[in-house]
Amino acid sequence: MRIDIITVVPELLESPFNHSILKRAKERGLLEIHIHNPRETTPYKQGQVDDYQFGGGAGMVMMAEPLAIVIDKLKEERTYDEVIFMTPDGVLFDQKTANRLSMKGNLIIICGHYKGIDDRIRQHYVTMEISVGDYVLSGGELGAAIVVDAVGRLLPGVLNDETSALFDSFQDGLLAPPVYTRPADFRGWKIPDILLCGDPKKVDQWRHEQSIKRTGERRPELLKGME
Amino acid sequence: MRIDIITVVPELLESPFNHSILKRAKERGLLEIHIHNPRETTPYKQGQVDDYQFGGGAGMVMMAEPLAIVIDKLKEERTYDEVIFMTPDGVLFDQKTANRLSMKGNLIIICGHYKGIDDRIRQHYVTMEISVGDYVLSGGELGAAIVVDAVGRLLPGVLNDETSALFDSFQDGLLAPPVYTRPADFRGWKIPDILLCGDPKKVDQWRHEQSIKRTGERRPELLKGME
Repeated sequence: MRIDIITVVPELLESPFNHSILKRAKERGLLEIHIHNPRETTPYKQGQVDDYQFGGGAGMVMMAEPLAIVIDKLKEERTYDEVIFMTPDGVLFDQKTANRLSMKGNLIIICGHYKGIDDRIRQHYVTMEISVGDYVLSGGELGAAIVVDAVGRLLPGVLNDETSALFDSFQDGLLAPPVYTRPADFRGWKIPDILLCGDPKKVDQWRHEQSIKRTGERRPELLKGME
Repeated sequence: MRIDIITVVPELLESPFNHSILKRAKERGLLEIHIHNPRETTPYKQGQVDDYQFGGGAGMVMMAEPLAIVIDKLKEERTYDEVIFMTPDGVLFDQKTANRLSMKGNLIIICGHYKGIDDRIRQHYVTMEISVGDYVLSGGELGAAIVVDAVGRLLPGVLNDETSALFDSFQDGLLAPPVYTRPADFRGWKIPDILLCGDPKKVDQWRHEQSIKRTGERRPELLKGME
C-alpha cells in the first residue's frame, strides 16, 4: 500500500511514522508513506501557499494551484483509489472505513492548515472527505496520522500477532473486555478469580460477557441491530 | 495550563508538540507539556512495563505498578483536575469537551499501548476516559496529541487572531462555510460572485446560509435541537 500525504507542515508528521508499528510496516515493505510539501513546488513567489480569503474575515486559506500541482503530478505517475481531504465537516472516520481503506492500493491524503483549503480543490479533486471526530484541530496532519495508523495496522503482516487486531474494540462491534497482568494482587486490588481458573472456555465466556456489559454501559447504541 | 503525558513511546510525541501552534503556546508560556516514560521509573528489571495477560490471549498488557509510580509522584507535586486515559471505549471527545478541558489547570493523560493497561489503574486512578473516535490505533499517543492540540489552541493568546477559532466548525454548532482565495478564476472554476460584492453583511448572510446548508447535508443531526 502507498499513501501520499500533502502538507505544508511536514515536520508535524516526522515522529508518528518513524516509530512503533508504522516503522515496522515500512521496514517490511508493507506500507510506503511519501510526504509532499506544496511550498516546494508552488508557482508563487517565496513559497507562498496561502492567501487572505475572498469576502474578508480572519484566517488564511490554502490556495488551489499549489495543491493542484502536487495532486496532478502524483496522478500522472500512478492511479489513486481515493483523494482524501481531512476536515472536521467530512464523514466521521470509523473502524469500518479503516477496514475498507486497508484494501486499497494508493491513497492521497490532503491536510488542510490555517482556515482551510480553497473549496475548488474539494469540489474538483477530492473524492472522499474524512473527519476523525467532532473537534477542531490546528490542521489535518494529526487526522492524517490517525488514518494512516488505523489503516496501517490492519495490513496483513504489520502486527506481530494477527489475532491481536481481531480482538480489538469495534472489530466485532463490541468494546474490548478489561485486561489484567501481574501481579494478581496490586496494592490490595485483586484480579477477577475467573482469570486464574485455567479453563480457556470459561475465560472466553467471561470476556464475552464483559464486552457486552461494557458496551451496554458505555456505548449502548453499538448493541442495537446486533440481535 | 499544564499537561503531563504518560507514555512508553515518547518518541511518537516529539514532532506534534514542537511545531506550529503548540510550539507557540509553549513559547508564550501558556501551555506546559511534560512527557513521562514509565520505563525510566519502573521497579521491574530491564525497564519492564508490560506482561502477558491473565487468562491467556494475544497481546501484552501494561502493568499497574509502573503507571501508578508516575501518577503518584505527579500527584504529590500538585493537584490534578483530571487523570485521563485515552481508550477506544472511552467517552467520545468533542468540541464541548475540548472547551471544558481548556478551562482546567493541570491534567494527566495516560497513553495505553500494546493490548491496553491493567484495568486496576482504570478503576482506581483514572477519572476520565476519552476516545477520539470509533477506531483502533496502535496506542493512545495520537489520541493524546489530538486532545492537547484541540485544547491548546483554545487557550487565550495561542491563536494569533482569536476570532479565527470562534468561526471554526462546531463552535456555534454548525459546520464552517466554504472558503476561497485568489485567483478568483482557477482553471475556469470561479468563486461565488457574492464574495466579490464588497458588502460584509451580505457576505456574512451567505456564509451563514452555507453553514446551515452544509450542516444539513452532511450532519443533519447537529441541526436538531437548534430550533
